[in-house]
Amino acid sequence: MQNKFLNENEVGVFALGGLGEVGKNMYCVEYQDELIVIDSGILFPDDQLLGIDYVINDYTYLFENQEKIKALIITHGHEDHIGAIPYLLRQVKIPKIYASGLAVGLIKNKMEEHRGFKANIIEYQEYEKIVFGKLAVSFFRTNHSIPDSFGIVVHTPQGIIVHTGDFKFDFTPTGPDADYQKMAALGQKGVLLLLSDSTNAELNAFTKSETTVSENIKDIFTKIEGRAVVATFASNIHRVQQIVEASIATNRKVAVFGRSMIRTIEVGVDMGYIKAPKDTFIDSKLINKYSANQITIVCTGSQGEPLAALSRIAAGTHRQIKIMQGDTVIFSSSPIPGNQASVSKTINMLFRRGANVIINSPLTDTHTSGHAGQEEMKLMLKLIKPKYFMPIHGEYRMLKIHSKIGIMTGVKKGNEFVLDNGDVLAVTKNSARVAGKVQSGAVYIDGKGIGDIGNVVIRDRKMLSEDGLLNAVVTIDEASMQLIGKPVIVSRGFIYMREHEELTNEIAKMVEETVVRKLQSMKKININFIKKDITKLLTDYIYSKTERSPMIMPVVMVIEQNIQ
Amino acid sequence: MQNKFLNENEVGVFALGGLGEVGKNMYCVEYQDELIVIDSGILFPDDQLLGIDYVINDYTYLFENQEKIKALIITHGHEDHIGAIPYLLRQVKIPKIYASGLAVGLIKNKMEEHRGFKANIIEYQEYEKIVFGKLAVSFFRTNHSIPDSFGIVVHTPQGIIVHTGDFKFDFTPTGPDADYQKMAALGQKGVLLLLSDSTNAELNAFTKSETTVSENIKDIFTKIEGRAVVATFASNIHRVQQIVEASIATNRKVAVFGRSMIRTIEVGVDMGYIKAPKDTFIDSKLINKYSANQITIVCTGSQGEPLAALSRIAAGTHRQIKIMQGDTVIFSSSPIPGNQASVSKTINMLFRRGANVIINSPLTDTHTSGHAGQEEMKLMLKLIKPKYFMPIHGEYRMLKIHSKIGIMTGVKKGNEFVLDNGDVLAVTKNSARVAGKVQSGAVYIDGKGIGDIGNVVIRDRKMLSEDGLLNAVVTIDEASMQLIGKPVIVSRGFIYMREHEELTNEIAKMVEETVVRKLQSMKKININFIKKDITKLLTDYIYSKTERSPMIMPVVMVIEQNIQ
Repeated sequence: MQNKFLNENEVGVFALGGLGEVGKNMYCVEYQDELIVIDSGILFPDDQLLGIDYVINDYTYLFENQEKIKALIITHGHEDHIGAIPYLLRQVKIPKIYASGLAVGLIKNKMEEHRGFKANIIEYQEYEKIVFGKLAVSFFRTNHSIPDSFGIVVHTPQGIIVHTGDFKFDFTPTGPDADYQKMAALGQKGVLLLLSDSTNAELNAFTKSETTVSENIKDIFTKIEGRAVVATFASNIHRVQQIVEASIATNRKVAVFGRSMIRTIEVGVDMGYIKAPKDTFIDSKLINKYSANQITIVCTGSQGEPLAALSRIAAGTHRQIKIMQGDTVIFSSSPIPGNQASVSKTINMLFRRGANVIINSPLTDTHTSGHAGQEEMKLMLKLIKPKYFMPIHGEYRMLKIHSKIGIMTGVKKGNEFVLDNGDVLAVTKNSARVAGKVQSGAVYIDGKGIGDIGNVVIRDRKMLSEDGLLNAVVTIDEASMQLIGKPVIVSRGFIYMREHEELTNEIAKMVEETVVRKLQSMKKININFIKKDITKLLTDYIYSKTERSPMIMPVVMVIEQNIQ
Repeated sequence: MQNKFLNENEVGVFALGGLGEVGKNMYCVEYQDELIVIDSGILFPDDQLLGIDYVINDYTYLFENQEKIKALIITHGHEDHIGAIPYLLRQVKIPKIYASGLAVGLIKNKMEEHRGFKANIIEYQEYEKIVFGKLAVSFFRTNHSIPDSFGIVVHTPQGIIVHTGDFKFDFTPTGPDADYQKMAALGQKGVLLLLSDSTNAELNAFTKSETTVSENIKDIFTKIEGRAVVATFASNIHRVQQIVEASIATNRKVAVFGRSMIRTIEVGVDMGYIKAPKDTFIDSKLINKYSANQITIVCTGSQGEPLAALSRIAAGTHRQIKIMQGDTVIFSSSPIPGNQASVSKTINMLFRRGANVIINSPLTDTHTSGHAGQEEMKLMLKLIKPKYFMPIHGEYRMLKIHSKIGIMTGVKKGNEFVLDNGDVLAVTKNSARVAGKVQSGAVYIDGKGIGDIGNVVIRDRKMLSEDGLLNAVVTIDEASMQLIGKPVIVSRGFIYMREHEELTNEIAKMVEETVVRKLQSMKKININFIKKDITKLLTDYIYSKTERSPMIMPVVMVIEQNIQ
């Protein structure tokens, strides 16, 4: 079935997630009866989404068009690109998932955690071209903060569409080079549309090389007299390899702490990304058999996550590691916005325990971003030379800045498209237009629940978090329409009711009077009217007394006559 | 009464707030029967303190020693130095409050908002020396982001104690110079102890001058074709003056939006800090009578505060200002940690409405900090040349770094004191020791309540914010010990109960069974036992079904026999 917004010769390109936000990336290329999906990520919720574990996309469009889906193509193995695959597979039939080396391993791990959903995962090769029908895809290697990151080339009858995935340019990478030749050849051949990563569009710079970081870490290691404790992102396997090399160079054994770090290093060693003499890694239980200057500890917790290894070390609750005088803790990471406070807390605690702490800064450069700054965005645009340009991956202002960079580097004004999730861009050889909007949106995951949390629940949580709640329970005898007993007043998160007995009694008395009066005015008990009166009464009264607005929860129990 | 920790000849120096944190500054100098308090600030709560408006200090020590208090001395008029004065005065008798020019005005404003508490506010002069008994104070002018900021010199029989207040060094300030000569003379004379601002101790730099910022803003103004909208901190009156000057230079009239900005500019004009030809400021209702390039809008909202002028402009809900094509919004500010998300949201909305947005960055420099970087800390240490050194104002790691800077610049190792709130440093001419700990702590303010919110309430709010709550109400007939009616199950912030009728019914049935069983095992109704059983049952059951842990609130109503 043809997409209703598209003319027969038009190729439709749209995001179900990833525009106007950083996360839950999912892009679609549709042509006649074929549909290719690129990435299926999750988004980590901000502070406003209270209690939400993560956010996925609304898959309605894919569900309704599942017979057209040829494949899901994965650019790389980060959670905001693969994290939602199990949820997608619950709702939508995806015949094939194509992914690259490390991403294959990570997706398989993930599927094991969500049993009962089969996935047909196929590893794509760098120089492969996969032909579906009228659509085909090929790949080009990029630099990013996880190995095996690729840009996706979608070959359509109207021309070539390039999706960069997440990328940066690193001229001295610790892994393989980006494939400049392939990108340049695409540009030479002619690219109809470029979708390019905008995450760091506000950064007027060329992202520092991993080699710089690696040299800095090595430098720091030579100056450390005690143990070296390094926290970084587990998925940044190249970084872990650099830490291992710095340890070898300074005659240190490496002990690994934190579940995800242990798992990643196992995968990294298995797949050959991490290379080290056999006796480099030691059992974490053996660290005390070595002197301090012979030990490197690699661990999770670079974002101050409360349960991660480094956070427990800092809090003094780690079973095996206690900070000793002379320990140096290196953050080979930057705090993600929203995590600053918890990272800061961790650092303070480490200082208090006597550790020396080195964080990433323009002076230390113990970390570098995985995303292109403005100069790299320009290089990508110069190599690919697209006719049409659609910035992806980023909040609105990042997309907007990236679109200006596009025009600055040769995209014709009017050929740039800053879109929202769901907006369908219809392109042909000679034209591009926003043709319509397919269904898209955010679905919240909380515990086992998928999408059972809506905005009302979030709003309630917000209200509860600010002033708590007050419960007023009254019981009414149906026959006599009389109150039975006294109202019960209970609160949580409001004030200590025990210390405010007077207020509690006053509230109970007012509720009683209000309900009695209301009952007198009624011919028949209407629970909702009574509740409404209680809510209004208490909202006003409590605010006037305390300037707080706890959520008022009235419960009215009506007892039928014939009590046994 | 002599402080029990001090020998008769010792001077006691301690913080009741401001160490290990940024905010609620309050420092004390005590000698025999005299006590001087420096500053009385509030702290803005972090995300963890749900619903708390702000945090003040525990004033128990001051209350118990109020007959010794000679004065409260204010360094400058920021909220983290004056914000708690009304709360302090409710609890503690303070004979005199000494403050400088602008701070006097701001404190008086504040006292008007909290009627019923008299304050004896005295304006101190730059070259004055106020003698109490054995203690005396004098002042030296510093640079900071609010006019009339002073360092405090406490003259004691054991020697001179210097408290810097908040400071930076600005060699080309927009207001008066810092008093280098006075600081150097103190150093020459000999300073026993220095308490110095550590807020920016992690910044390996010399803070940029206000003049640089002012020139940048002027440059930007010359390039703006439409309206110039500038958001900044209301209290930074020198900055506002710079914006006014840039407006005059580009033939713009200035309209002011946001209550605190309007108030500050009135004070600023009255006190002569803001100088402008009479017709520079226009009534905010008249902005549409001018062409776009003749208008500057100065407003609040630089931190993305939801109700501030700029936030409402960005959201399109401001009654008078709608963003027009060509508008340029300048953030002459940096987001305070914790506000990044809301600032980012505001910027995205402004971009969406078509505004050009300029934020502070190393490229634009539209803002500079009010606090000393490491190089300025060194200069202060070199001018004052203290024997003993106590870093103040900052989280633990900042104090720690500052203490190292102290040693690096000449403080003898062992003479630096990184302390916690309450720690009493006892000093004489020749000695310094940590002598003991007085009571200190955090008191939460929520609405009208002072200190009625404890950690239990905060913990409840946290729990409510994550998974909401579930209310289970049962009614029992006392005589027959039988359940009356069905249990009522209500929830908020958990799931949509209406959409989960099955779960609700199941829960009600299980509660009923549990209560009936419990009642059968009882000789007399014990409400607490029944509640405990309901809580345990529902906690386990709901987690197994949903992996969520809403707060369970059981209510058991016992009805006496004789229903009328």
